[in-house]
Amino acid sequence: MAFSRGAGFYERGLTVGIDIGGTKVAAGVVNPAGRVLGRARGETPHRSKSPKVVEDTIAGLVEDLRCEFPIQAVGVGAAGFVDEQRARVQFAPHLSWREEPLRDALKTRLGLPVVVENDANASAWAEVCVGAGQAAGEVVVVNLGTGIGGAVIIDGRLQRGRYGLAGEFGHMSVVPGGRRCECGNRGCWEQYASGNAVTREARELAAADSPVAGGLIQAVAGDRSLITGPLVGELAAAGDRACVELLEDAGTWLGIGLANLAAAFDPELFIIGGGVSECGDLLLGPARAAFERNLTGRGYRPVARVVPAALGNEAGMIGAADLARDTLPRWRQGRRQRRLPQPRGRRRSRYGR
Amino acid sequence: MAFSRGAGFYERGLTVGIDIGGTKVAAGVVNPAGRVLGRARGETPHRSKSPKVVEDTIAGLVEDLRCEFPIQAVGVGAAGFVDEQRARVQFAPHLSWREEPLRDALKTRLGLPVVVENDANASAWAEVCVGAGQAAGEVVVVNLGTGIGGAVIIDGRLQRGRYGLAGEFGHMSVVPGGRRCECGNRGCWEQYASGNAVTREARELAAADSPVAGGLIQAVAGDRSLITGPLVGELAAAGDRACVELLEDAGTWLGIGLANLAAAFDPELFIIGGGVSECGDLLLGPARAAFERNLTGRGYRPVARVVPAALGNEAGMIGAADLARDTLPRWRQGRRQRRLPQPRGRRRSRYGR
Repeated sequence: MAFSRGAGFYERGLTVGIDIGGTKVAAGVVNPAGRVLGRARGETPHRSKSPKVVEDTIAGLVEDLRCEFPIQAVGVGAAGFVDEQRARVQFAPHLSWREEPLRDALKTRLGLPVVVENDANASAWAEVCVGAGQAAGEVVVVNLGTGIGGAVIIDGRLQRGRYGLAGEFGHMSVVPGGRRCECGNRGCWEQYASGNAVTREARELAAADSPVAGGLIQAVAGDRSLITGPLVGELAAAGDRACVELLEDAGTWLGIGLANLAAAFDPELFIIGGGVSECGDLLLGPARAAFERNLTGRGYRPVARVVPAALGNEAGMIGAADLARDTLPRWRQGRRQRRLPQPRGRRRSRYGR
Repeated sequence: MAFSRGAGFYERGLTVGIDIGGTKVAAGVVNPAGRVLGRARGETPHRSKSPKVVEDTIAGLVEDLRCEFPIQAVGVGAAGFVDEQRARVQFAPHLSWREEPLRDALKTRLGLPVVVENDANASAWAEVCVGAGQAAGEVVVVNLGTGIGGAVIIDGRLQRGRYGLAGEFGHMSVVPGGRRCECGNRGCWEQYASGNAVTREARELAAADSPVAGGLIQAVAGDRSLITGPLVGELAAAGDRACVELLEDAGTWLGIGLANLAAAFDPELFIIGGGVSECGDLLLGPARAAFERNLTGRGYRPVARVVPAALGNEAGMIGAADLARDTLPRWRQGRRQRRLPQPRGRRRSRYGR
């Protein structure tokens, strides 16, 4: 367990944000301005992603950080379906969890308020609070990682849906009867525009011994199982034609999905986060082109901006920490007063409001 | 111009709702409880859908109703993209309008507050206020008419998006490179699950002289251009196999689209309105089956209910009238106090809130 210590102890409203990844658990002490003051990180034993082991790791990290900081609450971002009480991870395909009461288990062990949140919601929240989406009212965040996660913020509020499951954009179908998805359906968007999709396409291209895949095969010395999304990104940045095209394909699918989301949500801003988004304009260029090409009503409507996320891989941690801050009474939150843009041309009343 | 008179004159908060249809303009005086007290209706000359003619018709209807009722505001529901100020019809494919400043034109002529709203938003609003969606917090309304319109109500608020264009579900792509849509794109949902889609499929089936289309061809005495959506519905209700299958196909596409919307919005309730929804379970049965079959996370999440709309073709009128009521000071709205369900397991705060 590595541990690093930052500046600014004894502030008000310090909370811990936890990001549960595939092989590691990252924890950070975050202040109300979104700054990470201290970090800790634990490995989960390879292949052991049992809830108990992850719980132990989280509790250990929080206890460590607690020796140094006056921590008041804990927010956990988990890749999976989190229920509307923000207590249970109902279904986490990558962790093989089912109906895990993570919040209550941690609360009992730590004696602190705990909030569990979908990881895409957590990182989207961070982007809106202190990242690329500040001052925007209607924001859709799309996270391109292993799969595609997402979140919607309307008028500065995270929209969680009735059962806490809003924003599962990666599982919107874009190809009828298309590729099989881990969720059990076919043709899900994340089968075409995620990091996994890029990796799979690259491996297929290399396996086909296509003449265009020469650079790719050479880079892994013929061992195609070493081909990964980040490698494709690197080679594309270095000008490898096949890798540029792979990112173009993924970007085009990204843009098509964004056009669907624009028809549904009509946001003013799309924020593209997650590891794949680090490919920058090699991905976002084709994505913007496909988005504008597939936007319904184009020519008669303003076009939402598509921008990369600003906070990198600490977004989930920062967002989870900030969401945990909501469990505290306002005077303990230590938040600055900040004004959101006012709603435009819209009335808020309804019977009795 | 026909005119009929209802009970309950001299109530507070009476407003007029206008529904602009393809060949007629319907107006109704609606009270704060959503009851239609008086109706008027005008034909627009065939093929003349120019804004001026429609404006004249609307103004005439309102002036007529005004002789009998103390009308305080006017709401107009129009099939098209309405801007975020609820003033202009930016783009109405079926009316060939572009950037029509309908609100200001009517306001000047009538001397009353006027609100222009997308027709699907208006009818969805009515369903949530006094129809099938009362007491539900997160509702997605899908209107199956010529095309597919839609609207989203979250926590009792109509979500209009940044530019007033949220809820254009009919133009979410479900088939890459699929059928051409009036919006200029391909594979839009409304090309597969709307009234137009049913009609087109039925005509194609009849044109192919398929042995299963016998009932259909007989019903129109061989003139395939007489085949319409309502006819397909009637024949299906009478047990015609081909027509039952046509509704099954449309219903299946409907369900696939609903599963996409559930992944994005996670509502507790889908309300299916519009003319096609009058086919009832012949359509909604297959739709529910396909919805549950294509819902991501199925088995690990609650399944939203799918119900037909309750208000029929007066929903748009009632909703537009109610939205116009928001322009009045509260003491003149005449609304009952009513409580919405409280948000569950969710915090509303954000920096500065």
